[in-house]
Amino acid sequence: MWDELVPVGKAPSGGYRRFAWTRDDHTLREWFAGECTCRGLDLTTDRMGNQWAWWGDPDAVPGQGLVIGSHLDSVPDGGAYDGPLGVLSAFAVVDALREKGITPSRPLAVVNFVDEEGARFGVACAGSRVITGALDADRARGLVDSEGLTMAEALAAAGRSAEDLGRDDETLRRIGCYVELHVEQGRAMADLDPDTSAVAIGTDIWPHGRWRLDLPGVANHAGTTRLVDRSDATLLAAELVLAARAEAMRHRTVATVGKLRLEPGGVNAIASHATAWLDARGPVEEDVRATVSALSDETAQHGGTVTEESWTGTTPFDEGLIGRLRGILGAEVPLLGTGAGHDAGILSNVGIPTAMLFVRNPTGVSHSPAEFAEQDDCHRGVSALTDVVEGLLS
Amino acid sequence: MWDELVPVGKAPSGGYRRFAWTRDDHTLREWFAGECTCRGLDLTTDRMGNQWAWWGDPDAVPGQGLVIGSHLDSVPDGGAYDGPLGVLSAFAVVDALREKGITPSRPLAVVNFVDEEGARFGVACAGSRVITGALDADRARGLVDSEGLTMAEALAAAGRSAEDLGRDDETLRRIGCYVELHVEQGRAMADLDPDTSAVAIGTDIWPHGRWRLDLPGVANHAGTTRLVDRSDATLLAAELVLAARAEAMRHRTVATVGKLRLEPGGVNAIASHATAWLDARGPVEEDVRATVSALSDETAQHGGTVTEESWTGTTPFDEGLIGRLRGILGAEVPLLGTGAGHDAGILSNVGIPTAMLFVRNPTGVSHSPAEFAEQDDCHRGVSALTDVVEGLLS
Repeated sequence: MWDELVPVGKAPSGGYRRFAWTRDDHTLREWFAGECTCRGLDLTTDRMGNQWAWWGDPDAVPGQGLVIGSHLDSVPDGGAYDGPLGVLSAFAVVDALREKGITPSRPLAVVNFVDEEGARFGVACAGSRVITGALDADRARGLVDSEGLTMAEALAAAGRSAEDLGRDDETLRRIGCYVELHVEQGRAMADLDPDTSAVAIGTDIWPHGRWRLDLPGVANHAGTTRLVDRSDATLLAAELVLAARAEAMRHRTVATVGKLRLEPGGVNAIASHATAWLDARGPVEEDVRATVSALSDETAQHGGTVTEESWTGTTPFDEGLIGRLRGILGAEVPLLGTGAGHDAGILSNVGIPTAMLFVRNPTGVSHSPAEFAEQDDCHRGVSALTDVVEGLLS
Repeated sequence: MWDELVPVGKAPSGGYRRFAWTRDDHTLREWFAGECTCRGLDLTTDRMGNQWAWWGDPDAVPGQGLVIGSHLDSVPDGGAYDGPLGVLSAFAVVDALREKGITPSRPLAVVNFVDEEGARFGVACAGSRVITGALDADRARGLVDSEGLTMAEALAAAGRSAEDLGRDDETLRRIGCYVELHVEQGRAMADLDPDTSAVAIGTDIWPHGRWRLDLPGVANHAGTTRLVDRSDATLLAAELVLAARAEAMRHRTVATVGKLRLEPGGVNAIASHATAWLDARGPVEEDVRATVSALSDETAQHGGTVTEESWTGTTPFDEGLIGRLRGILGAEVPLLGTGAGHDAGILSNVGIPTAMLFVRNPTGVSHSPAEFAEQDDCHRGVSALTDVVEGLLS
């Protein structure tokens, strides 16, 4: 499975550019359908385009489905593991159960959530957000990519319809619980006892959000305008980038500006407008809020505005489910909160019992071509997920 | 003439996006050809695509041609005056001479230099640089726009050939002298006696250049990477943007970062690379060099590199020609150095006697939709240029 996915959407950087509803995304979706077919699983695609491979009839007894999986899309120049590792491991669990001669006593599904990274339309976990109603259908349809195409247009171009988007109770009621396996994205596990920390159990997702900073300037000629006569949006952006770092340090959070746009963007024109996108997260909600609030004040002092594009408070995973996972895997398995958002968090927010398993990341590097996990650790991840599924089925 | 040009290439901002070899540029070139035809001037297009409207045979007595004009392209979201005012005024001068019953004793031309702003391919004054040999033909052909198209491909798409680019002595030998009328782009004239400063005579173009700063980082996840573990190219770019301003203040120059690119450019990814373009100029060469040198040192300390993309030293206009213009227009007309580059400077660098006339800019705003000149001042510009042409013809 790994070898089949490696070439899809590979960029010159060595990383991946697997964006929702592109040609490469389509290839990944066809791959998913193929894996489903060769195992005799029933492929269902919900109205938003998330793919579900069912073993057993999910509608026979509603609310009993055990769902495992993740996503196949990537951030720009992202790594090979973030997302695909969870989907592949889920298919490997199906194979492991069959080798053991186990037939699930309740329906089991492998899921591929579409557009988890939000790389194209700017909203992360769009696939799970739309079906849970966390992202309004009209807003989703109107989201615009960098080429000016709306999500509705992108769906239409991919042969789908955006008309029926919206909360999808038919799909949600099939899910009894969801366990997402994912590569860890920081160095937390790498610093623990190497023998017992190949796999960890997720406890919660940090509160996190995205904000857009719009910063004013006055367009003018770079050669003829005296420094004192300038109102330069680039300078303002630079000050706020540095302020974001300082406020994050002060409030024990993380804050990042990874995307920045200058207008008009000419080498010899003073910028009339800068747009900077801020990503801020941290273990404690109040600290994240305080970080953004300090930056909002500084932005306002310079005549700029800060707009919240998304916000998700602390998302605890299901206590009962975490307890069962600890029972199955052993109490020595580490527990871990994470600064990364996941579809598991979106499902948890609508009351679906949800948990996560993390596979060790030796360098802590993620969202980068250098993202890596040892093959042994990946196998241990499959083995742990198999144990979890077996345990939850019994 | 003004009314015909106003709609061409107008952007939603109210400014102009008239880039070389685009559809809008083609419309402007057709307009130029039309103005030429209706006046019975002979249209010549040189190998680079600069347009020359000749009144009289430029090859009858070589080196006698008196050329006036400017350019029709714009920076992104630029103003209506920068460039077109000079071309329109030149055609108006032809009309004024004919109303007065004057037939030039030597060949007179109106010129439209192509691609003066360098908005598309990053090299300013490409039209005049190529025909004077200041820009190597191979380098010109290989310049790449933001879509990845080379100048050679853009020329081909516009129905032209890039094969014959290069120094164009046949064209250059026709030019006895060149006088370019242009809207002033700073506040220098606005601060002088209002009665005698509608028009100024240019003395020199400041030394100026463009440098590309490549700044390293390590791509990583914005949520899971601790601040201490980060190598964030955005932070480095922010520090250098602020350093550029500080060094310019210190060295009495101007320095601008109007274009900046972050990679991979995702909201939730730490930037692995930042590219910032620096525009630096000033009245004194040593001061500009010192500004860039200080920034190069700081960039190198952080593992980055600074690459010179263009450099033009101080360009004095022709002393004899300036003297004649002062004789014609009166000694009370102000003399002005400028921080803006112009085709007049490129021609001057190959020994063609060159001068400029500036029309007052009441706000000093340029390279912006808000760029403006009073209609009265524009008429005074035409009148001054008519006097200059009459004087130089006699």
